[in-house]
Amino acid sequence: MTDKIKIFSPATVANVSCGFDVLGFCLGTIGDEMVIKKTSNKGITISKIEGYDLPYATNKNVAGVSALALINDYNPDFGFEIEIYKQIKPGSGIGSSSASAAGSVYAINELLGRPYNTTELTNFAMKGEALASGCEHADNIAPALFGGFTLVKSCTPLKVLQIPCPADLYTTIVHPKIEIKTIESRAILPEKINLKQAVTQWANVGSLVHAMHVNDYDLIKASLEDVVIEPHRKKLIPNFDLIKTESIKAGALGCGISGSGPSIFSLSKGKQNAQAVAKAMQLVYSKTNIEFDIYVSPINTEGMKTMRID
Amino acid sequence: MTDKIKIFSPATVANVSCGFDVLGFCLGTIGDEMVIKKTSNKGITISKIEGYDLPYATNKNVAGVSALALINDYNPDFGFEIEIYKQIKPGSGIGSSSASAAGSVYAINELLGRPYNTTELTNFAMKGEALASGCEHADNIAPALFGGFTLVKSCTPLKVLQIPCPADLYTTIVHPKIEIKTIESRAILPEKINLKQAVTQWANVGSLVHAMHVNDYDLIKASLEDVVIEPHRKKLIPNFDLIKTESIKAGALGCGISGSGPSIFSLSKGKQNAQAVAKAMQLVYSKTNIEFDIYVSPINTEGMKTMRID
Repeated sequence: MTDKIKIFSPATVANVSCGFDVLGFCLGTIGDEMVIKKTSNKGITISKIEGYDLPYATNKNVAGVSALALINDYNPDFGFEIEIYKQIKPGSGIGSSSASAAGSVYAINELLGRPYNTTELTNFAMKGEALASGCEHADNIAPALFGGFTLVKSCTPLKVLQIPCPADLYTTIVHPKIEIKTIESRAILPEKINLKQAVTQWANVGSLVHAMHVNDYDLIKASLEDVVIEPHRKKLIPNFDLIKTESIKAGALGCGISGSGPSIFSLSKGKQNAQAVAKAMQLVYSKTNIEFDIYVSPINTEGMKTMRID
Repeated sequence: MTDKIKIFSPATVANVSCGFDVLGFCLGTIGDEMVIKKTSNKGITISKIEGYDLPYATNKNVAGVSALALINDYNPDFGFEIEIYKQIKPGSGIGSSSASAAGSVYAINELLGRPYNTTELTNFAMKGEALASGCEHADNIAPALFGGFTLVKSCTPLKVLQIPCPADLYTTIVHPKIEIKTIESRAILPEKINLKQAVTQWANVGSLVHAMHVNDYDLIKASLEDVVIEPHRKKLIPNFDLIKTESIKAGALGCGISGSGPSIFSLSKGKQNAQAVAKAMQLVYSKTNIEFDIYVSPINTEGMKTMRID
């Protein structure tokens, strides 16, 4: 049996404009690295965290909580030690906690010889995600574990759909380094929405799924519209409207809030367009005193990646 | 040029559980027949209506209003005479007015040598539909004209998507002959809905579209769920819950209200299942004193059909 594994655990974008709480996709160029070792002691230990300041206590760390959920089910007579090399800033809106929660269970499953399927791993990882967000959801976990473009059809029972997407679909993401408290970005959402807007939203979700199946870029563009969530949450993100306008002017198919923000994502046809969008985004935020990072990435259809096995 | 055409204008099912105002499909075994003749007089005349009592005045008849919209745009120096052989009972909830509105413009377009595409015809037909329902919508018109399974992505501009569907998908429809006033079935709907239910609904719409693309019957079954509209409108349809339970017990993938009712549709894999569902539906209503009709039909991927040209 393998004793040690090093993995890449990708960042993800949830919601994707029209698909609040349901749609998500996986990134290729940004993610955490994690090293998980088999130990003779039972249980889960977090032995190293680099990059960002996160709790070492297993039951207070999302990677620890999801790992515990897995071993409580499997009950091995040994344990695991987790090292986290965090690249994704917590609270950036591109699935930082999901990368940790999903990464640990993916790695442990590999070390155990894959007793669980990806849906089962998603269920374990959701326990970790719940620690970060207060409730179990899978819109970042699912694309991190399944890769590509995903639709969480339902959480109970968990049903994740893998939606095909065009090979040359790229995303550009700008992360303005401001803090939005999760509690605030949730509190700003209304409990009830207009039926008329809901109809627009589900027409867009259906249309986006169809567009992905038939590689219709014009239809992807027309479907990347959020009339329900964005009007509320964009108020928390400085220059959101300008970023959106300039991204689309630069060639993006669409642009919206990544998860609950503050990161903003866009989708483009091809790397060149995605890079032009990056330039446009950069121009907007470089005129402010807000620090920011920008990423360009193809959709990562693989998801988690094993980097080394010892 | 052809002077006379006889067509079959199909009945349709709108909403399809999760896709209120957006999804629809076309039937093969029930529909109206219409005969349209070129006349030397300009304008539109309705010369014969059989089957049901409907207005002869062109501007008060949905087939007349949509035909007028077309000829006002095309401006031919001749006119058309319309005969309507109505099979679909007005107010039954399976697209009776849409069949009339779409049939006349389809037939006239054929007689004119097809100057308009199907989206343009849908736009004209929506003018007729508006006379019947008080507002322009396309969820019955689109499947009648395009055939198959359709998603109305948006009305302004009009964008209709043709969603593929498995070849052996059958529908069973029961039409309990009670009257539901359109105004009542609209008034019963709330203006606002819970965000949580809306999320369930758009997960189902995306999931149903995906399921149709990949021929996944289990997923079609799981997606045919309406948590937003059905709980309200089913109150207007006697025995709705029992019909639904018995249909599913008999093998249906799902069962819901057709349009705004009172007809109830189900979808099944294969003709045999659809016929078993018909039997189950019959058993329920035959124990009441409500008159009813039952239809079994494959999904009609053709839509409108030219029966004879002279």
